[in-house]
Amino acid sequence: SNRYCVERNVFDEEPDVKVLTVATEKNHGLERFLRSARVYNINVEVLGEGKKWEGGDMKHEGGGHKVNLLKEKLTSMKIPEDRDQIILFTDSYDVMFLGSLDEIVKKFLEMSVRVLFSAEPFCWPDSSLASQYPDSQQLNPFLNSGGFIGYLPELLKILNFDIVGNKDDDQLFYTRVYLDEDYRESLRISLDHKSVIFQNLHGALSDVQLVANSTEEWPYLVNVVTKQRPLIVHGNGPAKLTLNNLSNYLAKSWSVSDGCVLCDEKRIVLDEDKLPKVMLSVFIEVATPFMEEFFQSILAIDYPKQKIHLFIRNGVEYHETEVENFYNAHSSEYFTAKRIKSTDLVGEAEARNIAKDRCIGSDCEYLFCLDSHARVEPDTLRYLLSTGYDVIAPLLVRSGQAWSNFWGAINSVGFYSRSADYMDIVNRSIEGIWNVPFINNCYLMNIALFRKPSAKHVSYLKEDTDPDMAFCASLRSAGIMMYVSNEKEFGHLVNSETFDVSRTNPDIYQVIDNKLDWEQRYLHPKYYEVFDNKEKQLMPCPDVYWFPLMSMRFCKEWIEVMEAFGQWSDGSNNDKRLESGYEAVPTRDIHMNQVGLDIQWLRILKDYVRPLQELVFTGYYHNPPVSVMNFVVRYRPDEQPSLRPHHDSSTYTINLALNTPHLDYEGGGCRFIRYNCSVKDTKPGWLLMHPGRLTHFHEGLLVTKGTRYIMISFVDP
Amino acid sequence: SNRYCVERNVFDEEPDVKVLTVATEKNHGLERFLRSARVYNINVEVLGEGKKWEGGDMKHEGGGHKVNLLKEKLTSMKIPEDRDQIILFTDSYDVMFLGSLDEIVKKFLEMSVRVLFSAEPFCWPDSSLASQYPDSQQLNPFLNSGGFIGYLPELLKILNFDIVGNKDDDQLFYTRVYLDEDYRESLRISLDHKSVIFQNLHGALSDVQLVANSTEEWPYLVNVVTKQRPLIVHGNGPAKLTLNNLSNYLAKSWSVSDGCVLCDEKRIVLDEDKLPKVMLSVFIEVATPFMEEFFQSILAIDYPKQKIHLFIRNGVEYHETEVENFYNAHSSEYFTAKRIKSTDLVGEAEARNIAKDRCIGSDCEYLFCLDSHARVEPDTLRYLLSTGYDVIAPLLVRSGQAWSNFWGAINSVGFYSRSADYMDIVNRSIEGIWNVPFINNCYLMNIALFRKPSAKHVSYLKEDTDPDMAFCASLRSAGIMMYVSNEKEFGHLVNSETFDVSRTNPDIYQVIDNKLDWEQRYLHPKYYEVFDNKEKQLMPCPDVYWFPLMSMRFCKEWIEVMEAFGQWSDGSNNDKRLESGYEAVPTRDIHMNQVGLDIQWLRILKDYVRPLQELVFTGYYHNPPVSVMNFVVRYRPDEQPSLRPHHDSSTYTINLALNTPHLDYEGGGCRFIRYNCSVKDTKPGWLLMHPGRLTHFHEGLLVTKGTRYIMISFVDP
Ligand SMILES: O=C(O)CCC(=O)C(=O)O
Ligand SMILES: O=C(O)CCC(=O)C(=O)O
Ligand SMILES: [Fe+2]
Ligand SMILES: [Fe+2]
Ligand SMILES: [Mn+2]
Ligand SMILES: [Mn+2]
Ligand SMILES: [Mn+2]
Ligand SMILES: [Mn+2]
Repeated sequence: SNRYCVERNVFDEEPDVKVLTVATEKNHGLERFLRSARVYNINVEVLGEGKKWEGGDMKHEGGGHKVNLLKEKLTSMKIPEDRDQIILFTDSYDVMFLGSLDEIVKKFLEMSVRVLFSAEPFCWPDSSLASQYPDSQQLNPFLNSGGFIGYLPELLKILNFDIVGNKDDDQLFYTRVYLDEDYRESLRISLDHKSVIFQNLHGALSDVQLVANSTEEWPYLVNVVTKQRPLIVHGNGPAKLTLNNLSNYLAKSWSVSDGCVLCDEKRIVLDEDKLPKVMLSVFIEVATPFMEEFFQSILAIDYPKQKIHLFIRNGVEYHETEVENFYNAHSSEYFTAKRIKSTDLVGEAEARNIAKDRCIGSDCEYLFCLDSHARVEPDTLRYLLSTGYDVIAPLLVRSGQAWSNFWGAINSVGFYSRSADYMDIVNRSIEGIWNVPFINNCYLMNIALFRKPSAKHVSYLKEDTDPDMAFCASLRSAGIMMYVSNEKEFGHLVNSETFDVSRTNPDIYQVIDNKLDWEQRYLHPKYYEVFDNKEKQLMPCPDVYWFPLMSMRFCKEWIEVMEAFGQWSDGSNNDKRLESGYEAVPTRDIHMNQVGLDIQWLRILKDYVRPLQELVFTGYYHNPPVSVMNFVVRYRPDEQPSLRPHHDSSTYTINLALNTPHLDYEGGGCRFIRYNCSVKDTKPGWLLMHPGRLTHFHEGLLVTKGTRYIMISFVDP
Repeated sequence: SNRYCVERNVFDEEPDVKVLTVATEKNHGLERFLRSARVYNINVEVLGEGKKWEGGDMKHEGGGHKVNLLKEKLTSMKIPEDRDQIILFTDSYDVMFLGSLDEIVKKFLEMSVRVLFSAEPFCWPDSSLASQYPDSQQLNPFLNSGGFIGYLPELLKILNFDIVGNKDDDQLFYTRVYLDEDYRESLRISLDHKSVIFQNLHGALSDVQLVANSTEEWPYLVNVVTKQRPLIVHGNGPAKLTLNNLSNYLAKSWSVSDGCVLCDEKRIVLDEDKLPKVMLSVFIEVATPFMEEFFQSILAIDYPKQKIHLFIRNGVEYHETEVENFYNAHSSEYFTAKRIKSTDLVGEAEARNIAKDRCIGSDCEYLFCLDSHARVEPDTLRYLLSTGYDVIAPLLVRSGQAWSNFWGAINSVGFYSRSADYMDIVNRSIEGIWNVPFINNCYLMNIALFRKPSAKHVSYLKEDTDPDMAFCASLRSAGIMMYVSNEKEFGHLVNSETFDVSRTNPDIYQVIDNKLDWEQRYLHPKYYEVFDNKEKQLMPCPDVYWFPLMSMRFCKEWIEVMEAFGQWSDGSNNDKRLESGYEAVPTRDIHMNQVGLDIQWLRILKDYVRPLQELVFTGYYHNPPVSVMNFVVRYRPDEQPSLRPHHDSSTYTINLALNTPHLDYEGGGCRFIRYNCSVKDTKPGWLLMHPGRLTHFHEGLLVTKGTRYIMISFVDP
C-alpha cells in the first residue's frame, strides 16, 4: 500500500476511465443497460456489436467470447502517459447502472486495490474451488465476472493469464486467476464482498431492498446487510426477473414526485394517415359470460376497421351461434377476416400460433390479442400503440378481485407468484408501465420482433404447458420484455369460473362473479339516482317505498328462468319445501333454491336492496340481510288469482314487479289494509319495500286476466 | 190370585188410603217431606209430633219407636165397611213424594199383593239373615222399612208379630216378619224389588237418574235399570246428601220453563221499621289481598248500622294496622262492636264459636259471617234475609276459577267432591237456591235454629278438622240444611294463595290470581273505552298509538316497588342479567324478574296490552305476547338523562309513562326520528305502543330536572 500511495502522487490528473461491455445483439436488455448509462452520463463502449455470439447460452457455462473480445479491446488500447487508465467492465443484458462513474471510481479508489471483481454467494461454475478461496466464510465470498473494475496494466496481465476458448466459461477463467495467490497478491486483485460498487442479485434477494419512500426523489437499492448503496446491479442467472422488477423503479425510471418516467420515453403520436395495420386476434377458449357485450366491445374499438385484420378463433360450441352471427354481420367491414370454428379441431396454442404467424407473414405491424374474458375500452388499442412498447398489455382486473391479466413475479416452477407491488399496480395506487414476467388475455405486440431470428423459438405451444405460460416463457427466453400498463382504466376481466351454460339465461346467475357486467345488463339504469337525491324517494303508501331496481331485461330473463323450470307449487298449505311443511298463506311460486339462484339473490339483497333499505329506514342495519323465503309468485285468474290478507314473516318485505299491468295482465297489485292504500300501477323492475309485520297487513289483489309475476323476499325474518 | 180377584170385586168403591209418618221434631227434613206431600195433594198424618224421640240416633240401629207409634195408630183405626183400608207408611226426614197417591195406589193394586215393602241392596242391620231370603240374587233383594204400603188387616197382623222396644231396630223387626215364610205367604207380603213405587237411594246411585231435560215440565227420577219412575224416594243412610241434591229439582222444586220454584216459596218482604238485628262477624284468618277494598265493602253493606252488632276477628298480624284503623274509625257507628285481635291467641274455630254464641246469647236474630276473602255487593245481606232460608250463602266464586264458597257434594271422607250441577251453579247457567252440603266464607244464619236443643252440638270446633268443615258437618248432623243462592251476582272471592306480604305493595302482584280486584284498583278507569269507540284511538306520531292503561295508583306503587328494590343497573354495556352479557343501548333499569313481577307483567301484556295491539295493528295476532325484556327505566340529569337513537328488538314496543312531566321532571319523552315526531306530553298510566324496528328509529329525550320513570317491554322480539 505504501508503493501505491507514491504512485498515486505521480499524477495530478484524474484517472482516465473506460467503460466497456459486450453485446452482440441489440435487445431489450441492452436497451435498458444503455438507458441506465445515459441517465448517469456514462459513456459505454459496446464490444462485439453486430458480431455473431459464440459464447453459448447465457443460462449455462460459457461466455469465454466476452473475455476474448475484452482482451482484444484492451490490447489495442493506448495507455495514457499522464494519468492512470482505469477499465470498468460489466455484462449488459442483465445489468443496470445505479450511479455516476465518478461515484463508482471514487469508491474504487477508496478501496486501494488494483482490480476489484464483483462478489456473490455461490462458487460457480465449479463449486469444488470454494476451498481454495482465502476466506469462504464471509459474506459473498466468491468471484462473479459480471462486473469488475481495475487498472489497465493489471487487467492486461489477468487477461493474458491463460488462453480461453469462446465457449469456455468467463467466470471460471477469472476465478482461476484470482485463486492463483501470486497473481492475486501481485496484481492486488480483490472482491467487492460488501457490494460497495457491484450488487449481484442472485442469492442476495433478502440482502437488498428497494427504497422508494424516502425523502429522495429517486428510488434506490440498498444492501441492508452491508449498509451500502451499490452503484451497479447485476440480475445474474435467475435473478434476471428480479432485475426486471427493479428496473421499473431504479435508474430514475420512477420519480417519487412524478411517477412513471419510463412511460413517456418511447411515446409515439399516431399519424392518422399512416396508422399501422393491426391484426385483431380474438380467442374464445372457454364458455364465457356476457359475450353479447364482448362482441359489442370489439365493434366499439376505436380504430379504422380497414386497418384491421380480424382473426376469430372460437373453441366453444356453446358460443358458436353468436360468433357466427357476429362474423357474418361484421367480418366484411374489416380489411381481412379469418375464422377458426369450434368444429375445426384446432388446439388453443396452435390457434394462437396461427394468429401470430399470420401476422408475421403479412403486412401486419401489430398483433392485438383479445380473449373473451377481456373487456376493453374503445381507446385501448390506440393507447397501446402510442406507448411505443413492443409487448404491452392494458391492465385488466376481475371486478372485486385481485385477479388480473398479468403476474408480478414467477416462482421457481414458473408459475404465478405475487410481487411486492402487485396489489399496488392492480389497485392503481401506483400508475405506470410495468416490466412483468407474464401477461395474457389482452396485449399488443410489435410483430417486427418476431421476424428476428432471436425470436424464432417464440411459441404458444409447449407440451403440458398452458399456452399463455408457454408463450411468455419463450418471450422471456428470447429476451423480449413484457409490460403491463395501468396508466388508465382500460376495462376489466370477466370470470367464467362459475358460468354454467346448462342454466337458462346463465348470465343472470353471474351477479357474484361478474358484478360489473351483471349490473350493466340487469340493474335498472336509474338505480343509483335515488342515492343522489333523497327527494326522489317515492312512497306510494305509508312507509312503503318504491324504487327502480332491475332492468326490463332482468325481468324478462328472470321469468324465463322460472317458466323453463316450470315446477310451480300447488298453492296448498302443505309445502314440502318448508322446514315446517306448512304455509298458512300459500302462493303459487318457485323458490330461488329450486332454480339455483338462492345465493345470487342473497347477493342482490346485500348489494342492491340493502343500501336502499338503509336509505329509507334510517338506523336499521342488518348486513348481510337474511332471507330464507325468496320466490317468484305467479297469479292467474284460473290458477291462484289473489292472496288473502296476511303479514309476512319479515322485518321488511320486498316485492319486485316482473311484468306490466294492463299489458301482461289486468287487476293485481298489493293493498295495505290498515292504510286502505293500494299499489296497482307497478312497473317491471320496480321494487316495493314495506315492513313485514304489525303495521303492514296486506293482500295481493285479484288478477282478472293474464299472468302477473312478482319476486318476493321476506328479509330479516 | 184367583181369590184376590174375587175379593176385589167385593167392593165397588175405591179403597180408602191413609198416609202415615213419624216425626217427633219439626226440622228441615220434615218440612221438605210435607212440602212434597202438599205438592201432590197428599194428606199425611204425622205420628209422634211433639213427643220425645226414643228411637235412638237415626244413623245407627234403632227406630223401634216408629213401629210402636204406628201400631198404636193402626190399632185405634176404624176399618171402613164398604171399602178396603190401605195404609201407606214412610219415613219423613229423608223421604220425598214424587207422585200422587192415586198413582201410588194404582201401582200397588197392579202388583196384586197385600203388603209391599220397599227394597234395597243391603241386608241391614243383620247381614247374616241374607241367606234366609227366598231369592237374594235379584236386584234389591232385601227389605227396607223406610216405606211400605198394605191393607190394614195384614199390617195389623204384622205389627202384632212380636213386641218391639223403642230402641230396637224397626227394619230388623219387619225383616223378621218377612223371613217368616208363613207370615210372608199368608199375608202376601212382597218387596218392591223394581222400585215401582219406592226408590231407596243408598247403594242405588248408579241405578237412578235425574231427568231434567225432557219435554216434561218437571224433572223426574228414573230407575234406568228397571225403567220405572219411582213415586217415593228415600235418602236412606248416607244417601241423605244425594236426596238433598235431588230435592233441588224433584217434587216440582224446579220448573224446566221457570227455573227455581223453591226460591219464592219462603220469600219475605223486609219491614223497614222492623229490620232484624244482625250480627256481622268478620273473620280475617290469613293474609288476604285487597283488604282496603274489603273494608270498603263492609262499610257499603246496605243495612242500618244500628241494626248491626259488629264482630271482627283478625288472626293475621300483617293486617292488624288496617283492622285497627277501620275499627277505630267505624266501630262506634254500629249498634255494638266487639273485636278479637291477632295478639289475643284465639284459634279460628274458637273465634267463630264465640261469634255464634254471642249472637245466640243476645237480641241478635241473624248471624252474618263474612271472611276476608268474601267480597259482596252492598245488597247481599238484605237479599239473604229476604229469601226466608235459615242458612244461606250467596254464591261467591274466585274470578276465572271454579273455586267457590260452597261444595256441591261431599265424598266418603267428608271432603269436597263435585256434584253434577256444580259448574252449572258456579257459572249460573242454572239459577236458584240450592241445598248443598257445605258453605263457607259468607253466609247468613237464622240464629233461632241454634237456640233449639237439637242444635246443641253445632260447633266449629272439632279436633283435626277445618272449622268450616266441622261446622257444616255438625249442621248436617243436626238436620239443618244449608243453601247457596246464585239467583243474582253477589260478589266474588279473592284468592290469597300467592299473596306474599314480604313484597312491597303485594297487591300489585295479584293480577293473575285476583284479576277482578286488581283491575278495579290498577287498571286505568278509561281502559275499556277505546274498545267501544275506535274514534278514540290516539296516534301522536305515525303508527304510534297512545292508550290509557294503568291507574295513577298503579304508577305510584310500581315505582315504589322498584325504588324499594333499588338495584338499578349501572347503565354500562356489560349487563350480567342478559344471556349475551351485552346491551348495545343500555338504560338505568330494573328488570321485572329482579322484583318477581315477570309472570305478572306477561299477564298484563296478554290480558290488557295485546287487545289494544289487536285493535290498532289489524291482522297481527300473537297470543300470548312474548317478551323477555321488561323493565322500568329511570332517567335523571346526573345519572343517565337520555337514550341515544336505536331500534328495539321487538315487533312492537310499549312504553308506559309512570310519572308526570313538568311535575316530577322536566324534559324527557320519546322522539321518532324518521318522522321527526316527539311525544313529550306523556301522562302517567298512559301507554305508547310503536313498532320496534325498521320504521321507528327512536331516542329517549334529555331529562333536565327531576326523575322520569317509564316501563318498557319489547314485545315479540
Ligand atoms: O300480490 C302482492 O303484491 C303481495 C304478495 C305478498 O304479499 C306475498 O307474497 O307475501
Ligand atoms: O325514553 C323513552 O321514552 C324511550 C325509551 C326507549 O326507547 C327504550 O328503553 O328502548
Ligand atoms: Fe306478503
Ligand atoms: Fe327503545
Ligand atoms: Mn456468465
Ligand atoms: Mn450476467
Ligand atoms: Mn231405620
Ligand atoms: Mn230413613
